Amino acid sequence: MDNTFGHIFRVTTFGESHGGAVGVVIDGCPSGHEISIEAIQKQLDRRRPGQSHLASPRAELDQVECLSGLSQNITLGTPITLIVRNKDAKADHYSDLKEVYRPSHADYTTDAKFGLKAPSGGGRASARETIGRVAAAAVAEQVLKRLVPGFEVVAWVDRVKDLQADIPSPESISREDVDATPLRCPDPKQGPDMEKIIVSAKKAGDSVGGTIFCGVKHCPVGLGGPVFDKLEAELARALMSLPATKGFEIGSGFSAAGYMGSEHNDAFYRDGDKVRTKTNRSGGVQGGISNGEYIYTRTAFKPVATIFKDQDSVDRDGQETLFKPKAGRHDPCVLPRAVPMVEAMTVLAVMDHYLRQLVTIHSRGDQHV
Amino acid sequence: MDNTFGHIFRVTTFGESHGGAVGVVIDGCPSGHEISIEAIQKQLDRRRPGQSHLASPRAELDQVECLSGLSQNITLGTPITLIVRNKDAKADHYSDLKEVYRPSHADYTTDAKFGLKAPSGGGRASARETIGRVAAAAVAEQVLKRLVPGFEVVAWVDRVKDLQADIPSPESISREDVDATPLRCPDPKQGPDMEKIIVSAKKAGDSVGGTIFCGVKHCPVGLGGPVFDKLEAELARALMSLPATKGFEIGSGFSAAGYMGSEHNDAFYRDGDKVRTKTNRSGGVQGGISNGEYIYTRTAFKPVATIFKDQDSVDRDGQETLFKPKAGRHDPCVLPRAVPMVEAMTVLAVMDHYLRQLVTIHSRGDQHV
Amino acid sequence: MDNTFGHIFRVTTFGESHGGAVGVVIDGCPSGHEISIEAIQKQLDRRRPGQSHLASPRAELDQVECLSGLSQNITLGTPITLIVRNKDAKADHYSDLKEVYRPSHADYTTDAKFGLKAPSGGGRASARETIGRVAAAAVAEQVLKRLVPGFEVVAWVDRVKDLQADIPSPESISREDVDATPLRCPDPKQGPDMEKIIVSAKKAGDSVGGTIFCGVKHCPVGLGGPVFDKLEAELARALMSLPATKGFEIGSGFSAAGYMGSEHNDAFYRDGDKVRTKTNRSGGVQGGISNGEYIYTRTAFKPVATIFKDQDSVDRDGQETLFKPKAGRHDPCVLPRAVPMVEAMTVLAVMDHYLRQLVTIHSRGDQHV
Amino acid sequence: MDNTFGHIFRVTTFGESHGGAVGVVIDGCPSGHEISIEAIQKQLDRRRPGQSHLASPRAELDQVECLSGLSQNITLGTPITLIVRNKDAKADHYSDLKEVYRPSHADYTTDAKFGLKAPSGGGRASARETIGRVAAAAVAEQVLKRLVPGFEVVAWVDRVKDLQADIPSPESISREDVDATPLRCPDPKQGPDMEKIIVSAKKAGDSVGGTIFCGVKHCPVGLGGPVFDKLEAELARALMSLPATKGFEIGSGFSAAGYMGSEHNDAFYRDGDKVRTKTNRSGGVQGGISNGEYIYTRTAFKPVATIFKDQDSVDRDGQETLFKPKAGRHDPCVLPRAVPMVEAMTVLAVMDHYLRQLVTIHSRGDQHV
Repeated sequence: MDNTFGHIFRVTTFGESHGGAVGVVIDGCPSGHEISIEAIQKQLDRRRPGQSHLASPRAELDQVECLSGLSQNITLGTPITLIVRNKDAKADHYSDLKEVYRPSHADYTTDAKFGLKAPSGGGRASARETIGRVAAAAVAEQVLKRLVPGFEVVAWVDRVKDLQADIPSPESISREDVDATPLRCPDPKQGPDMEKIIVSAKKAGDSVGGTIFCGVKHCPVGLGGPVFDKLEAELARALMSLPATKGFEIGSGFSAAGYMGSEHNDAFYRDGDKVRTKTNRSGGVQGGISNGEYIYTRTAFKPVATIFKDQDSVDRDGQETLFKPKAGRHDPCVLPRAVPMVEAMTVLAVMDHYLRQLVTIHSRGDQHV
Repeated sequence: MDNTFGHIFRVTTFGESHGGAVGVVIDGCPSGHEISIEAIQKQLDRRRPGQSHLASPRAELDQVECLSGLSQNITLGTPITLIVRNKDAKADHYSDLKEVYRPSHADYTTDAKFGLKAPSGGGRASARETIGRVAAAAVAEQVLKRLVPGFEVVAWVDRVKDLQADIPSPESISREDVDATPLRCPDPKQGPDMEKIIVSAKKAGDSVGGTIFCGVKHCPVGLGGPVFDKLEAELARALMSLPATKGFEIGSGFSAAGYMGSEHNDAFYRDGDKVRTKTNRSGGVQGGISNGEYIYTRTAFKPVATIFKDQDSVDRDGQETLFKPKAGRHDPCVLPRAVPMVEAMTVLAVMDHYLRQLVTIHSRGDQHV
Repeated sequence: MDNTFGHIFRVTTFGESHGGAVGVVIDGCPSGHEISIEAIQKQLDRRRPGQSHLASPRAELDQVECLSGLSQNITLGTPITLIVRNKDAKADHYSDLKEVYRPSHADYTTDAKFGLKAPSGGGRASARETIGRVAAAAVAEQVLKRLVPGFEVVAWVDRVKDLQADIPSPESISREDVDATPLRCPDPKQGPDMEKIIVSAKKAGDSVGGTIFCGVKHCPVGLGGPVFDKLEAELARALMSLPATKGFEIGSGFSAAGYMGSEHNDAFYRDGDKVRTKTNRSGGVQGGISNGEYIYTRTAFKPVATIFKDQDSVDRDGQETLFKPKAGRHDPCVLPRAVPMVEAMTVLAVMDHYLRQLVTIHSRGDQHV
Repeated sequence: MDNTFGHIFRVTTFGESHGGAVGVVIDGCPSGHEISIEAIQKQLDRRRPGQSHLASPRAELDQVECLSGLSQNITLGTPITLIVRNKDAKADHYSDLKEVYRPSHADYTTDAKFGLKAPSGGGRASARETIGRVAAAAVAEQVLKRLVPGFEVVAWVDRVKDLQADIPSPESISREDVDATPLRCPDPKQGPDMEKIIVSAKKAGDSVGGTIFCGVKHCPVGLGGPVFDKLEAELARALMSLPATKGFEIGSGFSAAGYMGSEHNDAFYRDGDKVRTKTNRSGGVQGGISNGEYIYTRTAFKPVATIFKDQDSVDRDGQETLFKPKAGRHDPCVLPRAVPMVEAMTVLAVMDHYLRQLVTIHSRGDQHV
């Protein structure tokens, strides 16, 4: 179950970072929709490492190939399989991983779970696994945009270490705005200082964390559910399933704790034939169900565990040792690349609930209590 | 799917707050375990409103009845059904809900989703729905404690509005410590001031939010998974499915953003035959899988939406109106009662993953790469 | 998972035959539909033992009670819980079961699976468990009939021991026709001889088996799927999950083996704006998907294992012994009572696929290859 | 959901017969097991068409490639992806399919379901889809044989048209015995006449059906469940999900209808420390749960719909027309090739239940009622 996300739009990712390929099977994609492979490739390119001086110099090309589910680029209603071959896997770069559990990586827990003593065992706990997610979401997004006018998901780097971006009108930000800088933070004032923090961490062989903001425009009313499948719960699971995440919040989030109820409640009003709220501390979800307002979340990422400093550790045979990482190709800050991952998981959660809601809407009776 | 939690230990809750009964069916509970109905009742009593001057004066007795799955209190491996009759439903208390959507409640979104114009439609989006969760978790907990020596889940009120508790050694706190005050905050210094905030909000017909801390002691190594079923993702979904939650974090949480990697990584060491970490910023989970350390999370709750102040709203026919709540029986702060709910959802997430991990462990081959 | 059927219309049954109650939770029932409790009760009454001289003299009243999901008989879109209290459980009737595994019953395998040595452990492997199924299907049927004009499911006893009914036009048979005799076989010629076989088996303390025919009228086109969720596979699982079943066939069934392809293929023709088939050896399903024709299946039931003859067996401590059943209250032929059970499982399978198909239809694009 | 089989050992197949590749993702395969790719290839070769004069002359090589989940042939506990490229797809062979719905094929229902008017839409309803199933089962089988001593699944052609094989001791038959003739029927007397029927049908451009017998040796006690997941129900679903199936039976099957209970019941006896049955009309499953005896089933296959005779039909625009198939490459009888498919689905059903049963066994308490 671990490798599948969604109930109706079911996404199963596969592939180790150093195996033959990584990819995804999408089961439950609506039929009769045209899919642009270029649009998938574009999101994969945004996810790819080595895009700027802020990131690692790896030149993974990440060329997507479709094995099934499309005919002349039209979805058939059958499983869509997308793969990316692993081309740049240089095993020797990882030879130092063979012996020692890297602190705060998945090495130890993966071995403990699966009974392996293998560096390749941890291959799923890799940012490269997210290729399948991003590819699947790029399909979902194309379908959703056709079915839901105005639907859009845009994320950006919201904070790096202690610097918090200030974005006065989040709903106006586009992906183009976000991609205008390699940092993917649309705050022109704080951005340069955030970049400096990352460059400085890179020089020091260290890493930094931060948060990512993600907004959903024109989400239909009615997605989610009143109990376990609250939309915020699904989004929380979706986002917290990304590597290196430590926290999630929606709407007012942790700051909600500081409000009085009378300050926090979102008053209703009429806007044409729509019921809307004057404020949006709820973040577009009330009682677990989307209310049609802008959905916005924040996800916290820890500083990546890969740093170039000696650390106390234990080897695969259980002996204490000093872990001495060789300098290699890794990002000092996962945030810019995590932007399309956050968008992807948000899209996948919404897509699944959108399709589920079709059942609810189209099977309703007309009786009222 | 919305009403079911878990894959192996599957909990399906049912019941509206103003219908015949609320309850739960537990499918997948291990056979041959003795279950104390008193222990279930005890957790339900902790969840019950009206326990102190901090809460609403409702006198729901919430007497649990077992309809199936036990014979002489021993689990049969068949579905366990637990119900609590609704005795105290006075419809007239809710007559003012019949016309107007209460701001920041589930009224509007529930109607929008299900095509109803019914106050009873929103009956699942009620704290009373959590009775089924707490009862199911009280069963799970009894089984888990037998299977996992030392296993314990303890939660408490960590913050009320702007006041943050200071608990120097969280692992030492017991449920008895927590229940020593009606506030359920084991910080003897901040506690009284927190209580004052709540009493003051109550007098003002207003409400306040806060956060709840939850710790898991002696969670087995290996629970969770490297991809979508990361243990933190499951906990996030579990906790964020509780009413009124706005945020979730594990380990260092949102504060992780502020660390350098070299400060955040948890170095490994040997402790007898165990691999352990010197610090625990990871919060007991690495790469999505439990590492045997103390798991700790924080969940943010907004101030409850029920307040006794006039608010702008829209009625069920779509007309703008002023919502004028009558004084009634509601809590100014859900936090103290949410403590057993948070424990319950944490137990349910761990229980399901514990049972899933049994497959992984007992089907392993002995071949190593 | 064992106790849940369906993906969207999810039915979870619970209850042992000798516990407090048996029942069902239905999750995913469409909202806004009026449900007649009388109609549910009527199907339960058809399922109830002791209705005629052909069956056991037990006087279970099986009064259904609704605990949740309805308000003024309108579905709320929340879980519907239906229970029937166990009133007639006389433990002493079963005291002879305490020691010995009854041949061809579930006693031994249930103990082996769950690690019990308990007669109460086998309580789920009881015809009484099907109360939940029949009740859930009675809800589903009411909704389906509203959503699908002309939809109807009618089953009858098709064979008893060696006597095969001859029903010239199955599509014309109604439930009233079926219920005209206690045997529930609408063949006026064979029926009386079939009854004689059952009465004779009853006198001899023995039992007989047979088959049940079930037809679905006006099933919508497009239900099912091309791979694992073929409609015939779902129906097979549904029907073979009933107690005492040994075989299932659809359309031409096992006789298909004897045809040439040129005899078996169903030629297409136009009927107004519909594509129809001239013959219907496919049984209403082609390539796993319903084609709008009459769906018909046959399910084989073994003679019930409860007979009043001494049989070699083994006791719960593993010692060989002679099982000497005391005369008690049991049916010599499960077939007449199994008719509503077969209808119920057929309805549940169709209902789930009907709701699933709503997603497929309403998310389609308009692009053609 | 349609493309996934299993709850713990989850197999998702993908690929159209005329797309880029067909294949499978296996999620939930136990870690640390050595897998022979050759053994997978061997089962695929048994499934491949064109192996003898009885079948079509297509020369599909069906070379399997592993994209993920193995390192040095050891399972990592991560998804195993196996693909077979489509090499022999000559579109012009299928040009006659572009216009007309072939009678008793999936063409019409697939278009009706997915809203397509596309020959490629029906690509999943192809025997080629079963490549993924056979490959996944070949993995499962290797793991199961290591975990369950003596475990073996052997199927064979049991009947062709009117000729029924007579196999005195089914439990003694091996796959080598079965593969000794191209027909895959281990009855030396009837086999040659069965072959003649097929050769004769091939000459006539017609097709014939039949049944396949499948036996499971040394299935562990306790697999399955008392309610919806009865092992026979799972096997029924598994087998009836194969293309062209019309019926399924277990143990005495449809013939059970003709027995008296006193003839049909399987008496228990002791065999060392095991509880066994003297006869096995139950077919190795009682009350939905395996009892350790030999499991045996029969599955009925219709004559394949592809024949070279003109047939009345309707085209994709809804006009009545005569379907005139061009002579092409197709099998007159799917039975010999269906043998490994039947084995595959049987293995997959048992594997999933074996892993599920590990939870039940290893979480049991020691309390008895």
